[in-house]
Amino acid sequence: MKVLNEFMSKLKGKALVAQGGGPTAVINQSLVGVILEARKFTEIDRVYGACFGVSGIRDEKFIDLTQSTTHNLENVANTPGSALGSTRDKPDIEYCARMFSVMLKHNIRYFYYIGGNDSAETCRIINEQAKAINYELRVMHIPKTIDNDLVGADHCPGYGSAAKFVAQAFAGVNLDNLALPGVHIGVVMGRHAGFLTAASILAKKFADDGPHLVYLPEQIFNPDKFVNDVQVIYDQYGRCVAAVSEGIIGANNKPITVDLINEKEKDAHGNVQLSGNCAIGDLLADLIRTRTKIKRVRADTFGYLQRSFLGCVSETDRREAREVGERAVQYSVWDDIDGSVAIERVGDYAVHYKLLPLEAVAAKTKIMPQAYMHGDNAVSEDFRNYARPLVGELEHIERIMAIKV
Amino acid sequence: MKVLNEFMSKLKGKALVAQGGGPTAVINQSLVGVILEARKFTEIDRVYGACFGVSGIRDEKFIDLTQSTTHNLENVANTPGSALGSTRDKPDIEYCARMFSVMLKHNIRYFYYIGGNDSAETCRIINEQAKAINYELRVMHIPKTIDNDLVGADHCPGYGSAAKFVAQAFAGVNLDNLALPGVHIGVVMGRHAGFLTAASILAKKFADDGPHLVYLPEQIFNPDKFVNDVQVIYDQYGRCVAAVSEGIIGANNKPITVDLINEKEKDAHGNVQLSGNCAIGDLLADLIRTRTKIKRVRADTFGYLQRSFLGCVSETDRREAREVGERAVQYSVWDDIDGSVAIERVGDYAVHYKLLPLEAVAAKTKIMPQAYMHGDNAVSEDFRNYARPLVGELEHIERIMAIKV
Repeated sequence: MKVLNEFMSKLKGKALVAQGGGPTAVINQSLVGVILEARKFTEIDRVYGACFGVSGIRDEKFIDLTQSTTHNLENVANTPGSALGSTRDKPDIEYCARMFSVMLKHNIRYFYYIGGNDSAETCRIINEQAKAINYELRVMHIPKTIDNDLVGADHCPGYGSAAKFVAQAFAGVNLDNLALPGVHIGVVMGRHAGFLTAASILAKKFADDGPHLVYLPEQIFNPDKFVNDVQVIYDQYGRCVAAVSEGIIGANNKPITVDLINEKEKDAHGNVQLSGNCAIGDLLADLIRTRTKIKRVRADTFGYLQRSFLGCVSETDRREAREVGERAVQYSVWDDIDGSVAIERVGDYAVHYKLLPLEAVAAKTKIMPQAYMHGDNAVSEDFRNYARPLVGELEHIERIMAIKV
Repeated sequence: MKVLNEFMSKLKGKALVAQGGGPTAVINQSLVGVILEARKFTEIDRVYGACFGVSGIRDEKFIDLTQSTTHNLENVANTPGSALGSTRDKPDIEYCARMFSVMLKHNIRYFYYIGGNDSAETCRIINEQAKAINYELRVMHIPKTIDNDLVGADHCPGYGSAAKFVAQAFAGVNLDNLALPGVHIGVVMGRHAGFLTAASILAKKFADDGPHLVYLPEQIFNPDKFVNDVQVIYDQYGRCVAAVSEGIIGANNKPITVDLINEKEKDAHGNVQLSGNCAIGDLLADLIRTRTKIKRVRADTFGYLQRSFLGCVSETDRREAREVGERAVQYSVWDDIDGSVAIERVGDYAVHYKLLPLEAVAAKTKIMPQAYMHGDNAVSEDFRNYARPLVGELEHIERIMAIKV
């Protein structure tokens, strides 16, 4: 019997799910998508969660999610942060060998790792190692990043909600700056890709709304040009709001603040830690204070609020984050293949999901395409059209309509 | 006829409304409360708005709000920021003389100024000046401050929404810190009063939730004690979240960062500018990095997002901010008196409104009562009970319930 054969040929064992990298507002949607979907398949006898990413596999720290109530999981899905705990570990060969011995012991046959390009690289290494020792293991990378920098996808779960935070933050900063005019510099996360910084413009409504200037890590940042840009806007509007990526680079192609940052503090991937301090914002504010006659100059670094703030979720993001988790389980069980789930835009606005090879996504970074930039200090209408459906409807902003006396 | 006499005796002329100090999420509710209420009274023939606070009066920059549509105004009410524009000017005698000549010219007889204790002081001075030159003018101060530091009131409009932002920010930071453990220091606005910093605890749910430490400007901050506090919490939970007021003071009773801040930049009230830079957060993070062996230490300064973020409004705050505006008009026209409107708590949770003399509120600062503090690094249950209804319901946070393998 064909049906029975097909059924019997499926890989049977436990599923293991883990979360890697920085948390987002919707990464738990993907987690719960995996758990609830995996519990539907007879091929999967139990669903384990690894505590603190790959480190929890290495250290054999699992929780059994098979009997967690759907009610509990649905509430977790709506909670920001990584409910299983996360890690920035990048497994080497020895690390992987330890992980496999643990997976073998528990008969884990389906591994779902939710994270960014570093986590995809971890998936790729684990997959390679599993093949090398002939261990049958489905390895699925499930995308997650507020940076929106995964190769091969239209966009990534986590971005829409972080972009909504940034748009709402700049909407507020702009209104504050309208009331008490001056210069405001807002520093946004994004080491190499400017998608999140570009989202600063999404709540602009009136012609003179800020941010008036947007500086992305994809373009060379020239401090002299910056001072001049701010002065020009200030002369025109009596105020200026600028959005600046934490990853802006100078003419030497190095992050402008690299000299200012304690080089000792790098994570296991060799990334310099850019967030969690205010060097860039203070540096740029001082530049304006010393080089212009503008009195009121302020800088805010949005920091970790961008990825964890309670109560700022894009509905589009919420739905898609859930579905990539479900899709990963579907691909791995029905199609018996490995890969990275990616969102494809197929309408305005509609999406499909596709599966990419792990090596197509792993450790690669997508940056903003040229078409999304406008000159060296603004973003284009194309970007606005691209990003608006990802963020969804924002609260209505209005100005007083009244005649001058 | 008594009724006619009463009616005829009322002061007739124009109303003028202005906004002062830092914007909030709901200050436009008070503005619209004044405008819509004032337009109901025949005593008030037109409602003017002064652009950029008292400076707009001095410079005769008015807009006529008498014919603004209710629809437009209701949308403005729901927009954060100060829709008329604001100022930090503190009028002196000459400034006031100029203001009166403008008010006289326009037959302004009802003046409503929405702001904090500095704005109340401005009201007091203007009222004094008006009396000195025998100019009949009703002067009403309408409370607004995210610092919640006005004397004589249970709490102030603007606080609930800013407190909600701070609670949601720390809820997110705590979840982030649970996923990627380390030390996180969040710096909150509030020059002298710790109400806003204290609000950091309002979304705590589980026993080990952060912030684990809260440092208020009402208490002496001891850096050595701080390092020790963080180490104790870190040893207990493997992580630590601390909420720190921007206004913390050292043993010399001066803000601990006063030396670090460019003293040149003070506003007209002599206030040192504490927000818009990250000195305190970076200073404290460096302290932990150098004095302990904790590797992952981050600091975020919430900055202007706290008072302007789009889409973070407490419903209680929204309602009360509207009503203080309406009450101010009622008091001034029906009771023909001057004063400052204050919120009084009369139930759990219910409020009444009362009128205080301007001099009881002007230039005075209320700080956190001792009963709201617990030791030197925490807040009490009394504070939680006080603040919870002001912030309202927060989004539900859940953790995974599952058994360890």
